[in-house]
Amino acid sequence: MKLVVAGTLALDTVETPFGRAERIVGGAATYIALAATQYVQPVGVVSIVGNDFPPTMLESLERRGVDLQGVVRHLGRPSFFWAGRYHADMQGRDTIETQLNVLEEFPDTIPPAYRQAEYLLLGNLDPVLQKRIYDQVVPRPRVVLMDTMNFWIERSREALEEMIAVVDILSINDEEARLLVGDYSLRRCARAILAKGPRYLLIKKGENGALLFSQEGETFFFPAYPLEDVFDPTGAGDTFAGAIMGYIAAQGRLDIEVLKEAVVQGTVLASLCVEQFGPDALMSVGREEVAERRSQLLRMSHFMGLTVSQ
Amino acid sequence: MKLVVAGTLALDTVETPFGRAERIVGGAATYIALAATQYVQPVGVVSIVGNDFPPTMLESLERRGVDLQGVVRHLGRPSFFWAGRYHADMQGRDTIETQLNVLEEFPDTIPPAYRQAEYLLLGNLDPVLQKRIYDQVVPRPRVVLMDTMNFWIERSREALEEMIAVVDILSINDEEARLLVGDYSLRRCARAILAKGPRYLLIKKGENGALLFSQEGETFFFPAYPLEDVFDPTGAGDTFAGAIMGYIAAQGRLDIEVLKEAVVQGTVLASLCVEQFGPDALMSVGREEVAERRSQLLRMSHFMGLTVSQ
Repeated sequence: MKLVVAGTLALDTVETPFGRAERIVGGAATYIALAATQYVQPVGVVSIVGNDFPPTMLESLERRGVDLQGVVRHLGRPSFFWAGRYHADMQGRDTIETQLNVLEEFPDTIPPAYRQAEYLLLGNLDPVLQKRIYDQVVPRPRVVLMDTMNFWIERSREALEEMIAVVDILSINDEEARLLVGDYSLRRCARAILAKGPRYLLIKKGENGALLFSQEGETFFFPAYPLEDVFDPTGAGDTFAGAIMGYIAAQGRLDIEVLKEAVVQGTVLASLCVEQFGPDALMSVGREEVAERRSQLLRMSHFMGLTVSQ
Repeated sequence: MKLVVAGTLALDTVETPFGRAERIVGGAATYIALAATQYVQPVGVVSIVGNDFPPTMLESLERRGVDLQGVVRHLGRPSFFWAGRYHADMQGRDTIETQLNVLEEFPDTIPPAYRQAEYLLLGNLDPVLQKRIYDQVVPRPRVVLMDTMNFWIERSREALEEMIAVVDILSINDEEARLLVGDYSLRRCARAILAKGPRYLLIKKGENGALLFSQEGETFFFPAYPLEDVFDPTGAGDTFAGAIMGYIAAQGRLDIEVLKEAVVQGTVLASLCVEQFGPDALMSVGREEVAERRSQLLRMSHFMGLTVSQ
């Protein structure tokens, strides 16, 4: 398995100003894997589902090129459940309910077929668990991309720092970067984080795009696609990461030029994802739609036809 | 006078996490005019100062190419005064004190030398006053750029709408655009505002850049320059507008290509401005520094070396 993803498979109840969706399939691994399959197939998933996870959804994932060998089906407990409500501005959100359920028994071994993965994406999970999965991939993967969140930064700092030291790409949002370093300036945060080990740092800013920093001191800015309406922002960051890693795996190498196009692809897929509830858009999107959105995005950002020297 | 600017000349007391500056020269017209003189000189100013406005500052403005024929010096009252404190994140700010003082006697006639201005920039002022100034420029200027704020959107809607109908470029921030239209989606706001008359709409998003919308349905995204430290955000929006109008006046025409480069120039000057307190940076910045920052900005945003077709 060339590309392996670890993360949650969940049932989500999502409320936005546009409506409410009850117990739809979500979770980081769903969005990550579906986005990555646009570029490389199969994509292996390490995760766990409960007895209430719809079998039709697992079949749909398989049809889209997701390999489920690493997914444990727990017959005695329900799936990880999250309920949230987005604010009117679609930026902030409140978590209404979180039920860990099967997540407490997340597998800490991965199938033999996954152990030579060249590309490993560790979605937002307990860093202790991320490390256990990482340690099973021998030899060390060519590229490791990791996501995390404020919860682990605050409660599991030591284990998290250990993982940050070994990953190639860290993908977090602006608030997480500030929390991790304890500084407001994102440029200073980036320098401090890159000093911990990662070759590249992606700082996600939601509707305001993303910043990419490299250990070589380069900084790049990527605008988000300005949508008329965002229907459901859930999974946007995971989709972004999944597309980036899928693209890198498809290219078979990681350098700044590959990563820049990977971020463009991530921006495109995230913009398509949030136009529908849950992972619906990722379930049906095709190459033509992706290429068309990418062209629009580049046209909008293309004030660079101007010469760089004055 | 080819380019005329109307706006406040003020004394500001500014507190930021980096320090405090007392009664320094500020006001929209100061930032606008200084930014515009990078591209075209002289720049005429319509404004009023009080008996406490430092004469040395007026001389400095003149040395930078600002024409002060349109500035009334009131001997009996103090200058317009504003005191504000920026939050730790340098985004939000609280107004601590506003003293209108001479602003209540803002001139509603402009000097004969300004009446054939080809380029008119109406800074944030009462729209009734903006209209009186606009009406005195005969024939109609080739390009009118206008700024406004939430205060006028809420209290002087009718006069404001009248002005919006006649300007070529409206420059406002994201919150003002949402307030003006009553919708959250900036794309829908832009369509509604352009339907009122302006050929172009600039929506400023502070550290998150700016969006440019045209009546032809084009949208462009411009990132801000990610600074290590912002020392004083005061005047950033005015500097942005002043540089844009100065660049347009220097080119002698307004089309989308000219405007795109004008916005790049505005982004560059605004980024230089906020690195120092008040208008200090604009008082000393030269062409080389502007060109160097512009190159850095374009390099950071230049993921567009990629081909647009896949």
